Amino acid sequence: MSAAVSLVNHNASTTRQTFERLRELVADDLSGVNQVIVDYLQSPVALIPQLAGHLVSSGGKRLRPILTLTTARMCGYEGARHISLAACVEFIHTATLLHDDVVDDSALRRGSATANAVWGNKPSVLVGDFLFSRSFQLMVSDGSLDVLRILSEASAIIAEGEVDQLMISNDVSTGKDAYMGVIQAKTATLFAAASEIGAVVADRSTEDQAALRTYGMSLGIAFQLVDDVLDYSAKQADLGKTVGDDFRDGKITLPIVYAIERGDDAERAFWRRTLEDEEQTDDDLEEAMSILARHNALEDAMGEARRHGEEARNMLERFPDNAYSAALLELVDFCVDREF
Amino acid sequence: MSAAVSLVNHNASTTRQTFERLRELVADDLSGVNQVIVDYLQSPVALIPQLAGHLVSSGGKRLRPILTLTTARMCGYEGARHISLAACVEFIHTATLLHDDVVDDSALRRGSATANAVWGNKPSVLVGDFLFSRSFQLMVSDGSLDVLRILSEASAIIAEGEVDQLMISNDVSTGKDAYMGVIQAKTATLFAAASEIGAVVADRSTEDQAALRTYGMSLGIAFQLVDDVLDYSAKQADLGKTVGDDFRDGKITLPIVYAIERGDDAERAFWRRTLEDEEQTDDDLEEAMSILARHNALEDAMGEARRHGEEARNMLERFPDNAYSAALLELVDFCVDREF
Repeated sequence: MSAAVSLVNHNASTTRQTFERLRELVADDLSGVNQVIVDYLQSPVALIPQLAGHLVSSGGKRLRPILTLTTARMCGYEGARHISLAACVEFIHTATLLHDDVVDDSALRRGSATANAVWGNKPSVLVGDFLFSRSFQLMVSDGSLDVLRILSEASAIIAEGEVDQLMISNDVSTGKDAYMGVIQAKTATLFAAASEIGAVVADRSTEDQAALRTYGMSLGIAFQLVDDVLDYSAKQADLGKTVGDDFRDGKITLPIVYAIERGDDAERAFWRRTLEDEEQTDDDLEEAMSILARHNALEDAMGEARRHGEEARNMLERFPDNAYSAALLELVDFCVDREF
Repeated sequence: MSAAVSLVNHNASTTRQTFERLRELVADDLSGVNQVIVDYLQSPVALIPQLAGHLVSSGGKRLRPILTLTTARMCGYEGARHISLAACVEFIHTATLLHDDVVDDSALRRGSATANAVWGNKPSVLVGDFLFSRSFQLMVSDGSLDVLRILSEASAIIAEGEVDQLMISNDVSTGKDAYMGVIQAKTATLFAAASEIGAVVADRSTEDQAALRTYGMSLGIAFQLVDDVLDYSAKQADLGKTVGDDFRDGKITLPIVYAIERGDDAERAFWRRTLEDEEQTDDDLEEAMSILARHNALEDAMGEARRHGEEARNMLERFPDNAYSAALLELVDFCVDREF
């Protein structure tokens, strides 16, 4: 397939258009996914569809189900199984978000109140469990033990990654390897599983399955690294978004790991005070951003994201050149260049 | 098979002996289950086996895995699949306990500090998720879609039951049907699934599977009703156990439902103050117990438990008369007559 890929930075409105075009390509499948989600959220216990629906309909990008839909189509799959399996992936993602928000005491997600802020932690924990279970019920209806293996393993790794993340939070001695291990587990593993499933439903070779798994893994790592960079990005502030949430939570992300490695004693003392002890004053975020700039930390984290994006692109070379493979290439551009 | 069943109340030491005899009968299988649990708790994230192991080894009765082991053996099964499937059941049970203790803010379970009291809520939620995932990984290794269907459905129903229980907590207008619905979902469904799986691995007819499912469901209902009664039992106090935990938490259980239905206005005002508003003084537990006694509420809840125990017994009539079916009959006696 053509490897001619734009490396030019898109501006915000272009990346948004890119993403809308991707959604458009699988729009029918995606509305099928939404219908499966609505159907499987049903329960005699009214709070369950109410609470889960609050999060499901809060305008997430649906990136993970889009991966399943698009990879399946790229592989020439013409049935309907990918639709319910994409819904499984979204259920697992939603369950982890519900539990994450409880674990992080988050009050806002995607600009709206979190479920735990509206209904409390208790039902959020339990509805997350319900969504996990529903996801496995849906997989059982589909009947593929391969898919069940992929997603049960992914769920276990995600949970491990989340516990691991708890362990390193506020720990300024965290190195790059430890950090990359956490984001691979907690974020990239579900991207990998979502993409691999596309090849599985299309009955592709294990090599093709592995290639799409690596595509998703690399894309997920790039996606998370960009997320980390955006949290310190001035452009985010221009767009009216919050900047510095990770900083205020004492989160150690790759830009911070770089800055700590490259900093002097005074800077390390600054990071210890602000991130380890979480003692912060109003001026500290600005100071943090100027230290990050001094060490090229954001640029270098973006460079790492681009390298993983490139690896994702390479994985697509073995697949046919069609509208879906083009879309999966563009998805890499979107994940790397996005500003939202 | 012989339907001659002792209806005589055992005393505490006899019921304990009965239970030990049951465990003895499947002792080899049970140590196999423990080994699978240890193996599958392994994780590169050290906190996971540490936290989960704390609960797994805290001296639970292992009732649910015993059900899977014993029903499989009763049905003549001679392989080893029932061992890993019994571990799946215990993993799901342990995951729900971890999440329950977070949801209930519990500090003690089985006389030891809860995982959330030792490590905090965050890792308890995430390790619960890990155990759920591990359970499904184990089922996938086993490879039976029937088992996966039974346990994914059970997990969804348990989560529904837990949310439902949150909804009725502190609500003194809860009726018997609503209450029975909650305990069927949150407790009895896993007993039912654990028992049904025994017939599934032994490749028994759907009628046999349904009979064992009903056996487990009835046994689970009886078990939970006895739990509710024990919380107000003077004998518990004699044994050095806490009495009145449910009362202090404002939990509506069957004895309370009966007392409220049968009480006068003054009594209803008492229940509203103590359970709905949770305004309690030191003398209130004693008063609660005397109101329960006045209306025969504990005896009638025990009567309901015995009726469900009888239903469980009847379900065993179609199965061969062997050491395992005898043990499953005795298990009913244990669940109904137990004092721990």
